[in-house]
Formats: sequence, C-alpha cells, structure tokens
Amino acid sequence: MAVSLGELAVRFGCELRGDPDTQVERVATLGNADARSVSFLANPRYRAQLIDTRAAAVVLNAAAADACPTAVLVASNPYATYARIADVLYPLAPLAPGVHASALVAKSAHLDPTAQVAALAVIGEHVVIGPRAFVGPHSILDAGVVLEADVRLVARVTLGPNVQVGARAVLQPGAVVGGEGFGFAPERGAWLKVPQVGTVRVGADVEIGANTTIDRGAIEDTVIEEGAKLDNLIMIGHNVRIGAHTIIAACTGISGSTSVGKRCMIGGHCGFAGHISIADDVVITGYSMISRSIEQAGVYSSGIPFEEAHAWRRLVARFKRLGLLVERVRKLEQAAGLKTPQEQDQDDD
Amino acid sequence: MAVSLGELAVRFGCELRGDPDTQVERVATLGNADARSVSFLANPRYRAQLIDTRAAAVVLNAAAADACPTAVLVASNPYATYARIADVLYPLAPLAPGVHASALVAKSAHLDPTAQVAALAVIGEHVVIGPRAFVGPHSILDAGVVLEADVRLVARVTLGPNVQVGARAVLQPGAVVGGEGFGFAPERGAWLKVPQVGTVRVGADVEIGANTTIDRGAIEDTVIEEGAKLDNLIMIGHNVRIGAHTIIAACTGISGSTSVGKRCMIGGHCGFAGHISIADDVVITGYSMISRSIEQAGVYSSGIPFEEAHAWRRLVARFKRLGLLVERVRKLEQAAGLKTPQEQDQDDD
Amino acid sequence: MAVSLGELAVRFGCELRGDPDTQVERVATLGNADARSVSFLANPRYRAQLIDTRAAAVVLNAAAADACPTAVLVASNPYATYARIADVLYPLAPLAPGVHASALVAKSAHLDPTAQVAALAVIGEHVVIGPRAFVGPHSILDAGVVLEADVRLVARVTLGPNVQVGARAVLQPGAVVGGEGFGFAPERGAWLKVPQVGTVRVGADVEIGANTTIDRGAIEDTVIEEGAKLDNLIMIGHNVRIGAHTIIAACTGISGSTSVGKRCMIGGHCGFAGHISIADDVVITGYSMISRSIEQAGVYSSGIPFEEAHAWRRLVARFKRLGLLVERVRKLEQAAGLKTPQEQDQDDD
Repeated sequence: MAVSLGELAVRFGCELRGDPDTQVERVATLGNADARSVSFLANPRYRAQLIDTRAAAVVLNAAAADACPTAVLVASNPYATYARIADVLYPLAPLAPGVHASALVAKSAHLDPTAQVAALAVIGEHVVIGPRAFVGPHSILDAGVVLEADVRLVARVTLGPNVQVGARAVLQPGAVVGGEGFGFAPERGAWLKVPQVGTVRVGADVEIGANTTIDRGAIEDTVIEEGAKLDNLIMIGHNVRIGAHTIIAACTGISGSTSVGKRCMIGGHCGFAGHISIADDVVITGYSMISRSIEQAGVYSSGIPFEEAHAWRRLVARFKRLGLLVERVRKLEQAAGLKTPQEQDQDDD
Repeated sequence: MAVSLGELAVRFGCELRGDPDTQVERVATLGNADARSVSFLANPRYRAQLIDTRAAAVVLNAAAADACPTAVLVASNPYATYARIADVLYPLAPLAPGVHASALVAKSAHLDPTAQVAALAVIGEHVVIGPRAFVGPHSILDAGVVLEADVRLVARVTLGPNVQVGARAVLQPGAVVGGEGFGFAPERGAWLKVPQVGTVRVGADVEIGANTTIDRGAIEDTVIEEGAKLDNLIMIGHNVRIGAHTIIAACTGISGSTSVGKRCMIGGHCGFAGHISIADDVVITGYSMISRSIEQAGVYSSGIPFEEAHAWRRLVARFKRLGLLVERVRKLEQAAGLKTPQEQDQDDD
Repeated sequence: MAVSLGELAVRFGCELRGDPDTQVERVATLGNADARSVSFLANPRYRAQLIDTRAAAVVLNAAAADACPTAVLVASNPYATYARIADVLYPLAPLAPGVHASALVAKSAHLDPTAQVAALAVIGEHVVIGPRAFVGPHSILDAGVVLEADVRLVARVTLGPNVQVGARAVLQPGAVVGGEGFGFAPERGAWLKVPQVGTVRVGADVEIGANTTIDRGAIEDTVIEEGAKLDNLIMIGHNVRIGAHTIIAACTGISGSTSVGKRCMIGGHCGFAGHISIADDVVITGYSMISRSIEQAGVYSSGIPFEEAHAWRRLVARFKRLGLLVERVRKLEQAAGLKTPQEQDQDDD
C-alpha cells in the first residue's frame, strides 16, 4: 500500500525534510531503494551508502541527516521508526474471523468471534481463544490451551495441554510448546518415565522461533516472561524461567530448572547447565558454555575463534601439553632459585 | 483423581507412616504442596525444605523419614516411586479406539481394533499398528511402518518408509524418524544424491523428543535400542546405533555410522564425528566434541566454562600465543643449560 | 525391481567383468550382500571386506578390480555409479498427478497437471507448482510460493510467502523455509518486531534436511544457491547467502547477513557470526566457531577434542591460569637477563 511521507512523519513523530506529498509503497536497503521506497540508516557501518541512495526518503537520526541527498525522516531511534513504517507498508493479511471448514474444534472450546482458526487446525477440549487471535494452518492446541488477544500462531504450531500464551505473542512454524519434559528416574539399569504434569506459560509479546521447543514443567510450570524473544531451533527444558525482554539467538539450549534473568542477551549455540541462575542484564556471547550461575550483570564468553587448521592443531597440541610446560617452568624456577616447591604448588593449584 | 495413602503404600511397596485413609489428588514440590498433595525428596539439596512442607505425604528414603513433619511413604528409590504415584494421579487420557473421521488410512494398513488414530493422521500402505497404540493428530506414517503395542505418537510425528517402533515407545511432537540420510557422492564439482534405502528401527520403551530427527540408513538400518531416551532437537545420522538405556540430552548431534554403547549418559550440545565407536557405560559431559572412538567406560569432557568477557579474551589471546610461550621457555632452558635442543624437541612433539 | 548387470554396465558406462545376464534387485554392504545384490567399494578402509563378499557384483575402481572375487562393474567414480544403480533398483514411487481430495488449494493457485499434491496439503493464493513437482502430505505453501519442475517436498514442509524453490530440490519433513527472520529493534527496554518483508530463494538441486529452518530476508532475500546441500536441524538466518554446491552438516547455525562461498564443506555443530563473508572452497571442520570472515580457501578449525574428565579439568585449570604462567616466565627471563620488560610486553601483546 502507498502512503505519503507527510503522513508517516505525523504518525511516527519524525521531522520530515522533503516533500510531504511524496508517496512511498515499499522498503528497501540504501543500495537498492528507488523513488517509491523508504530506506533507513541505523548501523553507522552503512553510512557510506547514504550518498548514492535513490530512496524517496531515508529514516535516520539528526546527526546523519545532512549527509543524505534525499528526503529524510529524522527519528531518535531510526530502526524502531523504520519497523513501524514497514508495518504500515506491509500490513499482515486481515483476519478472516471464524473457523475454517476443515478445522476440528472441540465443542467445549470457546473461541472469540473475532479470532480466526485456519485450515486443518485441531482445537482440543476447553481451549479458549481470545479476540483477534490467529491459529495458523495445521496448528494443534491440546486441551485447556489459552490464547490471549492477538496471539499469532503462524502455521503448524503445537501447544501441549494447558499451555497459556499471552497477548500478541507470535509463534513461528514448527514450534512445539508444552511437549513432555525430559524426566526419567534411574531404576535397575533402566529409565522410568516421570510424568510431566506442569505446563508452559508464555507471556505477552513473546516471540518463539521456527522449530524451537519448550518443554512443560515436571510439576510446576516452565515460564517465558513477557517480551522475551526466542530465535529458531532453541531448546528450553522443563521448569526453566526466561526473564522479561531477554533475547536468545538460535541453536541455544537451556537445561531444566535454570533461570535466566530479565533483559539478558544470549548469543547463538550456547549451552546452559541445569539448575543454575543467571542474573538480570547479562550478555553472553555466542558459542559459550554456561556451566554455573552468573550473579552479576556483565558480558561473558567461552568460545575460541577458529584458526587455519594446521595452526589450530598445533595450538591444541600445545594446550594438551600445558602440564608439561608448567613442569618445565617449575624446573627453571628451581634452577634459578626463584621459588620454593611450596610456592610453586600454590601457583599451580 | 484421588487415591488414599494406604492404597499407594500397598501398590508400590512403601512403608507408610501416617493415616492410610488420607486422600491425595495431586503432586507438588515440597514448597508448594498442600493437604491434598504428595511430594517427594530425592535430591539431598532440597532436604532443608522438608521441615516446612505442608504436603499430605512425602515420598523419601528411610534416612530422611524422621526429619519429615508429615506422613511419609518410605521407598528405596523415592524418585521412581514418585513417578509411579504421579502416573496414578495423572493418568493418560483413555484411548478412544478407532480411526478419527478426518484421518486418512490406506486400505492395506492393518490397525489393531484397540488402537487409536487421531485427527488428520495419514497412514500409508501396509502400515501395521499394534494394540493400544496411539497415533496423535497430524502424524504421518509412510508405507510399511510398524508400531508395536502401546506406542504413543503424541502429535505431529513423521515416520518414513518401513520405520519400526517398539512397544511403549513415546515420540514427542515434531519428531522425524526415517527422513532420508545425508548421503551425496561428489562428482564433477557437484553432489549426487545417494538413495537411502535402509530404515530406522526403534526399540521398546524408547523416548524421542520434540523436533528430534533420526535419519534412515543408507543401506542397512539406523538403530535405537530398547530403553534409550533422546531429548529434543537431537540429530541422529544414518546408520548410527544407540545402545540400550543410553540417555542423550538436547541439541546433541551424532554423525553417520557412529555407534554409541549401552547405558551411556551423554550431555547436551555434544557433537560426535562419524564412523566412531563409543563403549558401554560412557558418560560424556555437555558441550563436548567427540572426535574419536572411546574404548573404555569412564567420564569424558571437552567444554571450557565461560569467564567474564575481558578475562576470556585475554585467555584466548594467551592461548593463541602458546607457541611463543613455549619458545620463551626453550630459550630459558638453553640459557640455564637445563636441556639440549633434542630434549626440548621431544617435549614439544 | 530386477535388472541385469549387462544393462547397468551399458547404462552407466562401466566395464563389466562377469556375466551380463546376472540379475540384481537390491543393494547391500560388502558384508551382507548376497547373489541378488550389488555392492560397492569407494572408501579404501573397507577394502579388506572385498575378499569375503558374496555380492552378485561390486562397483569399484580399476585398481581394486583384481582383488574382487565376484563380478565387478569398474567405474571411475564408484560411489556416484553406485548411487545411480541404487536409483534404478529403488525408484521413487511414481507420482499420482493431481490433487488429493483432502488437500486445500486456493483457486488462484496454478498447478501443472503432472504435479501431485498429497493429502492435507494447504496451497495458498497464487502459488505456482511446476511439472512433476510433489507436495507431500501436510505441507503448507503460503501465498505466492513457486515450485519449479520436479521439486519434492517429502512431507510436512512449510514454505512462507513467496518462497521460490528451484528444479529438483528436495526438502525433508519438518523443514521450515521462509519463517519470519529474527529482527527486533531495541526501544525503551523492550524489543520491537521488525517486519520481515523478503523471502527465500532456493536454487535447483538443493537439499534441505529435516527440521532445518531458513528464515526469510528482512528486506532483500535469503538465498540458497543451486546444488547446496543442507543437513537436518540447521539454522540459516535472514539474508544469508549459501553458495552453490556448498554442503553443510547438521546442527550448524549461520547468523543473519552472512555469506558463505561456493563449494564449501562445513562440518556439524558450527556457529557462524552474522555479517561475515566466507570465501569459496573453504572447508570448516565440525564444532568450529566462525567469528570473523575467511578470505582464503583452505581448512579451518576451532574445536578441542575431548579428554578423560579428570585430565580435562586439569587442562582447563591450567588454561585459566595461563596469565600466571606467562608472569612466571617473565620473571625467569628477567632473572636470567634475557629480555627487557619492553621486549616482554611485545611478546605478551
């Protein structure tokens, strides 16, 4: 859909430098924008592209505005303003309220008349679906599920018994929320399944990525607090708690009963031990092994960046001989009369 | 459902200290239990919570019984006994034998009359479904699949051609068992797909987690032996064998043709090379890289726990300069007359 | 189906040493082959098995032919020739052109009459499905999807809006291509969703594994070039580009806007940072952390193989005390008069 720069400026509180009647109808990168496109500059690394852009207008902050050859929409947070403009230009398909003829809805379910249940969805007993919620095709809602207003299950989402999903949460295809937690009691050389009787509570404005899995609690519930954002292929074990507005990148796994604080930022491919606690406002870089609790806000890491393979193998070999290197240093210290063996033992403990 | 403590004691062979007529109807943690709840104490770290519990009864071992202010059910393996009690209090929904009207079943399939096929399942040619098996909604069973008695496909499980699933196995939503293995022959700069003509044999009492994938064999079969437990988002490559009663945590990947022994315990986020062999009774801690065979039972590791990011970067920098450090030690040894260059070469090889 | 060795030799340009009228009907490993089986020898490690094989014929190269006690099919690339023979012996089920009665197809969709849409598939508006394409059961094709000729969506594949899939591409069950990319703008302590308006373009002859996810682009498209092969449980972030004929093993994640070159080979469980660029013909061994761009073809690594757990813990402890070890070496150098503090600072920087 097309909209004028003037309307965008008014709607999102930007200063417009340029013709308010110019119509735009799409977004584009600085490099590929044309006279019907809005672009944006948020990351300074792309600033050099500004000079050649052919966008109708660029959303940027005041400091960059003078360098832009086109109309500008000056915003204090250009990326957020861009997001809102993109929402206007690419609205979600309007809901078609009601239940698709091919969907299967239990009689005891209660669906708000403004909600939409798409093709081949299966809705269990006593499910409650709130206003303007969208249940995408092939989704499965087990008994007792509750979706609050404006929830969007994009497609093929599976929700286990009694899972609660807060307002405006978005779940991508293949997400499984409320599968049975991984609980087994060892008994005579085998594993006895422990019933998982909790559920999952997903807060408002949460995002859950494609094929991500969140297990239901063993006794009490697994909890994803409001505003948390989970990327694809993440594993959240039973009885985990993810704090509000925490963001987690893909392929990370969090073991059972671990608690992650609010406003954390967690990179991809991290692995968390179970039964630990991570403070609020913790940043963990990608590929980290989180084996113990973190009590202080801060930045934490454990991945080792790659090297060319021969060089890497030499490094690994030296690492594996660190004990020998320490021994050689001990002998040198003894020969030089620098340290007593006791002092060396302290160094080495 | 409600049940008396006396009945639980008789049924599971516990010593009851308390009123046998007390009725319980749910399970709860020690901290949240009320007068209608059974709780349990298995992990000593929670023992301090015993004193304040308001549970109707606590399942625990004899050593802890005296410290409990409430009725107790004394068991030699409290966690296993708890699991059995939870099974009584939270029974699975009874099966509704037969085929849902919306399911699609090939004429040549043979379904035991006590089995249930739920909504929108697709059952291929010559499939055999055993007594009391449950095929959850949206499951797909390709031609020739065999489910033995009491198998439970929770929902949306996909089974490739001829996959066999042993009695009482449980497969969580999104599991894909029997997808085509990842086999390609290099040819003139491209990859030629190699047909994957084996299948997957899943033993009795196996658990397969949500969105876990197990590829079918290239020629012979991929095998998951009885009692093995696989968590969510695990990848099992073609022709892998997982030994009986081995348990694997989430996000671990096992490359093709690798064999893992019986009763192993494998942490999350591990990566296994292909064509290797792991002995029985091996424990591998989380986040380990398993690049070669393991011939002895024991515990193995390779992850490095995190540090604060600045400290970590210094460590990585020092690691990457290990060669220089060794060189400095060599010079010191030469200066001190401690070692000949040949001896040093031996140290460094 | 059965076929004669003579026909196979003619069809695939092999030299046959043996009876051309011998019929074969299956493939088998060297160890398990019988008189109706074709086997092959491609990996020299299995050469010792040749002597005992009971195969009807073995596909192998000229150098190994004399050592084989059975008929042989001599090929310059035995594995590729084996793949082609297996294709003959295990043909895909023939298509049943048309739309299954239970599938739901938008009126504006255009399906080639030779294509097959299987049970319970959902086909959105303006979808185009090319000749002989197969849309497996429970697949979902959002509006505007285009499948070129001979595409095969095995089962339960989800394609987001406008996703394009090139000829002969194969997508395994549970794959999600075109989910919304993970884009959020920070704003006042929360995360604002950024509309993801690009799509995914998948080239010809691409393979996408089970439960792999490929996000659609934020503005421009995510691109998987022709002939690329992606294993299971891989995550491809928005605006990534994977070069032609690159092969990626399972559980690897590639963050947004990263570009991987052509003909790369990437091991399992690797993690790639975003916004980096990997050259053509790069090999990355499994379990590597790729934190920066790679500009040269070559082999790269970063995983550290496991050790027995006690030994590993000692190594980690020594690693974490590397700073102290460097300090000790500095003191030794000073005591020996080998280096000035400035020279040491250079060593340590």
